[in-house]
Parts: sequence; C-alpha cells; structure tokens
Amino acid sequence: MLERIRIVLIGTSHPGNIGATARAMHNMGLSDLSLVAPRCEPITADSVSRASGADHVVHDARVVDTLEEAVADCTLTVGASARSRTLPWPMLSPRELGDRLPQELAGPEARVALIFGREDSGLTNAELQRCHAHVHIPTNPDFSSLNLAAAVQVLAYECRQAWLTAEPAAADEALACEPAPDLALASHAELEHYFAHLERTLVAIGFHDPAKPRQLMARLRRFTLRARPERMELNILRGILSDTEKLAPPRERR
Amino acid sequence: MLERIRIVLIGTSHPGNIGATARAMHNMGLSDLSLVAPRCEPITADSVSRASGADHVVHDARVVDTLEEAVADCTLTVGASARSRTLPWPMLSPRELGDRLPQELAGPEARVALIFGREDSGLTNAELQRCHAHVHIPTNPDFSSLNLAAAVQVLAYECRQAWLTAEPAAADEALACEPAPDLALASHAELEHYFAHLERTLVAIGFHDPAKPRQLMARLRRFTLRARPERMELNILRGILSDTEKLAPPRERR
Repeated sequence: MLERIRIVLIGTSHPGNIGATARAMHNMGLSDLSLVAPRCEPITADSVSRASGADHVVHDARVVDTLEEAVADCTLTVGASARSRTLPWPMLSPRELGDRLPQELAGPEARVALIFGREDSGLTNAELQRCHAHVHIPTNPDFSSLNLAAAVQVLAYECRQAWLTAEPAAADEALACEPAPDLALASHAELEHYFAHLERTLVAIGFHDPAKPRQLMARLRRFTLRARPERMELNILRGILSDTEKLAPPRERR
Repeated sequence: MLERIRIVLIGTSHPGNIGATARAMHNMGLSDLSLVAPRCEPITADSVSRASGADHVVHDARVVDTLEEAVADCTLTVGASARSRTLPWPMLSPRELGDRLPQELAGPEARVALIFGREDSGLTNAELQRCHAHVHIPTNPDFSSLNLAAAVQVLAYECRQAWLTAEPAAADEALACEPAPDLALASHAELEHYFAHLERTLVAIGFHDPAKPRQLMARLRRFTLRARPERMELNILRGILSDTEKLAPPRERR
C-alpha cells in the first residue's frame, strides 16, 4: 500500500526541505517522490545532510514541469492546504485521510498523490482545484505555518498508521516483541499467597495490627493489583518479605 | 490541557533541532520546553532561523542539569524510545498516548512530560527507567531513526488531536467530581525519593547488593511505575520501609 502513495512537492525553494522530506518519507516507508518545478537544486550538501541516509529518495525523485505530469496516473489527489479558500472543497483531517487510504488503494492500479505547495505561498487556487480533496493539518491558529517537511512528516505518519491498521500482519511484525517467559502474569492464587505473606510480615515488623486494620491491606491490594504483577515480580517481592521477616523480633505471646 | 504538557530534550547537540522543536511545539499549541544539559548553545542563528517565528519558546525554555529537575513536578513521564530494550516497559503508540492525555491531565496539578533523548543515542536505560511508559513512533524498520524535531512534531500533533477531540467534553469536566486529596498521584520527585528509600532499605537488610544489581531496581521501578502510585500509597510504602530499616543490623564498614 505505502509504495503507491506519492509525495508531490511543488516549487520548493530550500534543498534542506527536500532532504528532510526524503527522510520523513523513508522513515514512514514511503518512497515515491515527485518534484514539480523546484526553485532550487534538489541535490545539495544541505539536502543530503538533512536526508540523513535517505538521499536515495531524492536521487530517485522524478522532476517534472507541471502538476499534471506529476499526478497523471493517480486515482486520488489530495492537496495540503490551510483552511478552505473562497470555494469550499471536500476537506479531510489527516486522520480521515488515513482512514480512507486502505479502501482508496485497494485496486491494483490505484495511486494516491499527496501534494504540498511552496514554502512561502502554498498551493495556488488552480492547483487546489485539481485535487479531489484537501487535507488540513490542525494547527495553532496564531502560528499555523508548518515547516514543509514537518507537514510531510505528519501526513506520512498517518499513512503508516493507516497501513499498520489495515494490514494487521504487518503491524504485528512491526510491534512484535515476544514477552519473555518470566513476564507471565501472576495467577490469582500466587497473588493471594503474596498478600498473606505481606500481611504476616507487616505484623511481624510491628507495622500492622490486624485489630486496627485501617484499610491498610485493602490499600496495598488496590495498589498491587493495579500493576497486574508478573510472576517474576511477585518472586522478588516475596524474597524481600522473607529477608525482612528474618529481621523481625521473635514473636511474643501476649 | 496543552499548557500542561512539557517537552523535555536531553543532551541535544544541534541548535537547529531545538529551533525546529520550538516551531513544531508552537504550531501545535505547546509552549513548555525544558532542555536538560544541552550539548550546544540553544539560541543561535540556526535555531532562531529554524524556529521561524517561534523562538520565544526557546527563549522561555528552562535549562537544567538533570532529568530529575526537568520533571520533578510531573505526574506522568513518557520517554520516546526506539523498540523496547532488555526489560520491556509499558509501551504506548503515539495515538494511545494521545487518547490517554485528557484523562491524565484532568486533575488541576497533573503535568505530563514527553522526554526525548540525544540525536545520536536517544535516552539511556537509566533515563528510560525513570519513565512511567515509553512511546514508540512506528517507523520503517530499515530506517527507523527520526529527526528529533520530526519526532516532537508527531507527538505534538497527537497531543493537539487529543485536545481537539477532548475539548467538547471540557464543560462536562468542570462538573466532574474532584478527586479526593489522598488520591492525588505522586509526583516524579516523590517517586524518586521512594525509590532511593527502597534501595537504601534493601541494601540495609542485605537483599540488594548494588555491586551486583541484576536489574533488581529496574524491575521494582517497572512494577511500581506501572501502578501509577498515589501519594497516600507512597506514604504507606515509605512507612513500611522506615519500620524495616529500624530492624536492619547496624551498618558495618567492609
């Protein structure tokens, strides 16, 4: 799915932003970059440095003269935009865009373009009106202009989220972290043995008087159960209790 | 809500990343920045240029020597982390973090810290073990290292999303019952005092040898932080430690 999402930058003027866009894309698993009439040399020391190892994305980018050429084969075109202009257009949030992607990209020839405008002036009305929909990244109204690569980062992140959600196998793989065997949760019985041991120890060291319980054990249970203890953790806690018990004064008959 | 989310950068080495972080924060409505032992001058031509009008966030940033100082008053600390290390810690996705924020920040003294490590090496294990949870931004496994400001951008974006979603409920929140005073969550500083007391006690009773740590304190931290202790609960636990310490044999010089 991700390989069929194209990032299109129109009229970019800073090579550093192209490099940082490449890094953001590669971080999120995107690779298809088109540069429309860039107003700078795409490959410079600054763009390579900001790409930080993802400069192949810049090297592989298609450089074209017009938006038409960049998105000719795309089945959905979405322009990144500040709030809607004179003519309201279908407007998506980044999350709504992500939610739509799996379905949009279901067909084998489907291709989505996410289109970003100039650093200083964004997309023109003519460009915006070539888009199926606009996407607006919600920002602080007093300071709404995102850095170009930061905007790409947010949308690329939503693309990856959508992909991870749509392809649970991929998601599982990405998040896989086998719990080690000692991470098994303690059973109810093990917990009850622990609480009995805890109470016995607190009595032995003189901290707890079952005749005046003051909800002490209830509070300790509440705290402990909230943590959902693992077996290994209870073993440690019981080890501490055993060592503590040994220090307690011998029991007296009252 | 957003004003009580703190971004903490540890050991940052590039002023440009500090400036770009300030821009990402201000774009998303965050303003509280702490710099822990920065390895560069925070205010330079490069950071001001990358802040692009948000340099007041850098000027207002607190610069401190240690993570402890940066997060002492925080009730939830979350470290940005690549994949889980030797000892798995509660792990959130950025979206899960966002979903939790409104509730986490409901109380008037609640404060959340989002902690980011060094450009070259991230957070240390010791730093990660001071966090209640870790947040992992899902990335391309073949190219997983996000630019620092890009990582801040993604989490700040999720913070703003969470706020925008929670806003309509703000009125309801005003009617919600005040949590009882003894249910207040312990602050980071209170937790660290507890852990120091715990370790001292375990050494005193001979259970723990700091020369052979075997991850004991890390495991106890992990267990305790998972439960999100309330202040009252820590008071009980510290009472138990004090009574236990009194029973420990007098310290010998080795």
